[in-house]
Amino acid sequence: MSDLDLKELREWLHECGTVAKSFFNHVKGTRKSDRSWVTEADVQVERILSERLARRYPSYGILGEEQARSGTNREFVWALDPIDGTAGFVAGLPIWGISLGLLRNGRPHAGLLYFPMMEDWYWAEPGGPALFNGTALAVAATGEWDSEDWLSVPANTHRRFDIDFVGKIRSLGSTAASICYAARGSAIGSLFVSASIWDVAAALAVLQASGGVAETLSGAPFDCTVLLDGSQQREPALAGAPWHVAALRERIHIRRWDRQRESSSAHP
Amino acid sequence: MSDLDLKELREWLHECGTVAKSFFNHVKGTRKSDRSWVTEADVQVERILSERLARRYPSYGILGEEQARSGTNREFVWALDPIDGTAGFVAGLPIWGISLGLLRNGRPHAGLLYFPMMEDWYWAEPGGPALFNGTALAVAATGEWDSEDWLSVPANTHRRFDIDFVGKIRSLGSTAASICYAARGSAIGSLFVSASIWDVAAALAVLQASGGVAETLSGAPFDCTVLLDGSQQREPALAGAPWHVAALRERIHIRRWDRQRESSSAHP
Repeated sequence: MSDLDLKELREWLHECGTVAKSFFNHVKGTRKSDRSWVTEADVQVERILSERLARRYPSYGILGEEQARSGTNREFVWALDPIDGTAGFVAGLPIWGISLGLLRNGRPHAGLLYFPMMEDWYWAEPGGPALFNGTALAVAATGEWDSEDWLSVPANTHRRFDIDFVGKIRSLGSTAASICYAARGSAIGSLFVSASIWDVAAALAVLQASGGVAETLSGAPFDCTVLLDGSQQREPALAGAPWHVAALRERIHIRRWDRQRESSSAHP
Repeated sequence: MSDLDLKELREWLHECGTVAKSFFNHVKGTRKSDRSWVTEADVQVERILSERLARRYPSYGILGEEQARSGTNREFVWALDPIDGTAGFVAGLPIWGISLGLLRNGRPHAGLLYFPMMEDWYWAEPGGPALFNGTALAVAATGEWDSEDWLSVPANTHRRFDIDFVGKIRSLGSTAASICYAARGSAIGSLFVSASIWDVAAALAVLQASGGVAETLSGAPFDCTVLLDGSQQREPALAGAPWHVAALRERIHIRRWDRQRESSSAHP
């Protein structure tokens, strides 16, 4: 079993959140080769955390968004996103946070997430309930949707999906946060695309411990093990309570041009 | 001319922001007769501010979201939204704030907005530049859009609009914040619907002073004077730099069922 010092991990994330906050509204992002954003804050936070994790947990591997890659075939591997939601961070939007997941044999095992602008914390480990700011979480109960229920979606949804949904649709800018809002039953679900393992590892541990599931739009369980090479998810997926995920799947349709792209990338 | 004590107004909004924050993540909303949300935080903030404004500015009218209505035909009228973004506030989302606009003869004259979770302040008065946390603002420059440019939209956009846009689309949950992000050039524009005068008065003063415009989708200037009776805007509108607003208008289309509803409400 993993042997995590939660108190110490929280102190590290809090310290790094303060570093990141000092850049908020004062940072210019630059584009990486995949055109996604990176800032000095991402780089600093990943450096601090990856060094400390390697020292304190020498037998664990690590997979970080910005640079860190070592021992990714070990039993326990950290999946670290120093700032999930960098584009929003650069835009001055508040939903971004530090996502630290622990994989065991490639599957979400434990997760700690910290969203500095809200001072929100999520934590899950095997055997315990998922915790949000110290309180146990659960996904949204069954029940008919109404106009105030909400679903989180990617920011390119207007091009990729047709969604037949009576409620609100929001794009939060952070995949990790989106899944956490579904885990706590605030959102009825989260549609996510193109995620890497560091975007989702921690949040999926929280989701699981809250009674939620993650499944692709075609109904297969979301598989983290295929993302251990640093690649992005291929098929769009939904996170949330099993009943809401099943019902949402019927109401979300990939647009035709995009379906062509999906199928050509599935059969290269 | 109006004679505002900015220092005092900021103190009042800061104090009320602290009141509202104490409810964040600890509040249950209730639905008003129009099915929109209200919480104890909205009610307390409006009570505090409307009492102080009435005492300090006795010749001004006031139009508040929750209760306050007096002297709305005077030269100067406050338009107060104690919490713009209440649904997001109830959902645990961070983009909500206090919006205090001052109308002169029904038109946006000055505005002060405070978003407590980010500690973000916006301020505009006639003759000055709009200020964001003390720095002068300007709307986004001309230029071709790319995949990282973003547009803010209402949370029911998936039902009401088809949008042909290469960039990202986000729904922030606060009309006032959306217009402010366009005023500061973070978003290239903001599409907004069903706004009441208290949602937009302050943000439109900021937008104006940043070089931005607000126009309906059919190209008419957005008219606040028709909202003085507390009614909601009829036609969807865009806020942003004039060049982006003009280009966006061509790319946003009201869906057919909704166009029918629009035209029947326009000709009752």
